[in-house]
Amino acid sequence: MIHNSTIDKQINHRSIRKFKDQLLSPEQLKTLYTVFQHTATSMFMQNASLLHITDPAKRQKIQELCNQKYVGAEGDLFIFVVDLYRNQQIRQQLGKDDGRVHTTDIFFQAMEDTILAFQNVANAVESMDLGYVPLGTVNDHPKKMLATLDLPKLTFPVLGMQVGVPDQEPQLKPRLPLEFTCFEDKYSKDFDVKDLADYDQVVTTYYDLRDANRRIDSFTKQITGAKLNNHETDRDELPELLHEQGLCLDWK
Amino acid sequence: MIHNSTIDKQINHRSIRKFKDQLLSPEQLKTLYTVFQHTATSMFMQNASLLHITDPAKRQKIQELCNQKYVGAEGDLFIFVVDLYRNQQIRQQLGKDDGRVHTTDIFFQAMEDTILAFQNVANAVESMDLGYVPLGTVNDHPKKMLATLDLPKLTFPVLGMQVGVPDQEPQLKPRLPLEFTCFEDKYSKDFDVKDLADYDQVVTTYYDLRDANRRIDSFTKQITGAKLNNHETDRDELPELLHEQGLCLDWK
Repeated sequence: MIHNSTIDKQINHRSIRKFKDQLLSPEQLKTLYTVFQHTATSMFMQNASLLHITDPAKRQKIQELCNQKYVGAEGDLFIFVVDLYRNQQIRQQLGKDDGRVHTTDIFFQAMEDTILAFQNVANAVESMDLGYVPLGTVNDHPKKMLATLDLPKLTFPVLGMQVGVPDQEPQLKPRLPLEFTCFEDKYSKDFDVKDLADYDQVVTTYYDLRDANRRIDSFTKQITGAKLNNHETDRDELPELLHEQGLCLDWK
Repeated sequence: MIHNSTIDKQINHRSIRKFKDQLLSPEQLKTLYTVFQHTATSMFMQNASLLHITDPAKRQKIQELCNQKYVGAEGDLFIFVVDLYRNQQIRQQLGKDDGRVHTTDIFFQAMEDTILAFQNVANAVESMDLGYVPLGTVNDHPKKMLATLDLPKLTFPVLGMQVGVPDQEPQLKPRLPLEFTCFEDKYSKDFDVKDLADYDQVVTTYYDLRDANRRIDSFTKQITGAKLNNHETDRDELPELLHEQGLCLDWK
């Protein structure tokens, strides 16, 4: 293993869900924005935008939709937005048709821009000895979230991030051994769940601070359990929402 | 602006498209895999896999499909793969139905896992004074690429990355000023293309090494030009390909 300050933070990454009651300084904020700005972007289209939510009422509403008490509580709240509105406006205001902005291809490129920017900002956060938690829950109620954020057509809030000064020290979460995820030349299709026995054992030694120091289920138990079992959820609004937003219109 | 070694690399990011004829050391490779492994993952599902392509015939084939001479040439080639196959196998081999693995919701979470891992690896690459270029062109011919990589159902190669020792020093590419992309509390819908005049001017001062030191078009000229204009492309196979892969089956 090679070590430097960037990599040491990366391999010690853990989500922080409890922050000190302290906000980012204007200088920290500016730094994160600048990192966001310099992230690689597909075809130089710059299809990502960032919302910094400081309004208490809005934070409260977002917390309710995400249903996680740390969202919009201590620290700073950001929403990373897939944004094809800006480029559509450029085309329309300069007298062009919308071209390919409604295609799945261009939407995926915008997803890439936005999620790359998320991780870039995340690494900048950790380099400053701050912590963060990714908020996939911004899509728990997609339509309500869109209304709350008052976003125009051709945008989509893909991920949130709560950032701040860590006020907890979670254990490092054990990840799948590399032989299951990293392949030379050929993806191995003959996966055998029995080979996960050792890893399953390791996972059950992890304590999740979220749940009063109770040990968590093994990996295979989590994958065969509630989160992937069939169930009703507003998250299934996503395809309809994207169409309403004018995105992925070639998807039939 | 706050400065540290991570952030200084991030705000000086540029894509490298010419590498020295030198491969990653086993230690560098192991380090990148370990960073990949420790990336944040939605619901702890670990829905990403990584292919390292060393076989010359395969590199050649991928280069042809991407139609970029630096792909699979000097340096190391990686393909980042959205992977729901592994978790489907876990469920099937343990006697469960597929549950939600075919939904758009779960596919998006897997896209997030995979693209976050891409940027995390990218930052590790740059922290080691190496360079990279993201390869969105792995989706220029989605069906042929899938066949070339011999990937199973429930996977999708979303991005490639060519990595190596830089053999060029491109200029820093000027990005949209922050007022167009970063917002406090409220996304600004009243975008006026006239406000981009200064930025347009700045963009035209940039020289792209890809094209014999010719200056590039202004930003608005690029957005109103060929890349977003309607045209036929195999990239429009994406929705059909994903359905064939058993992904996003709730999208109708």
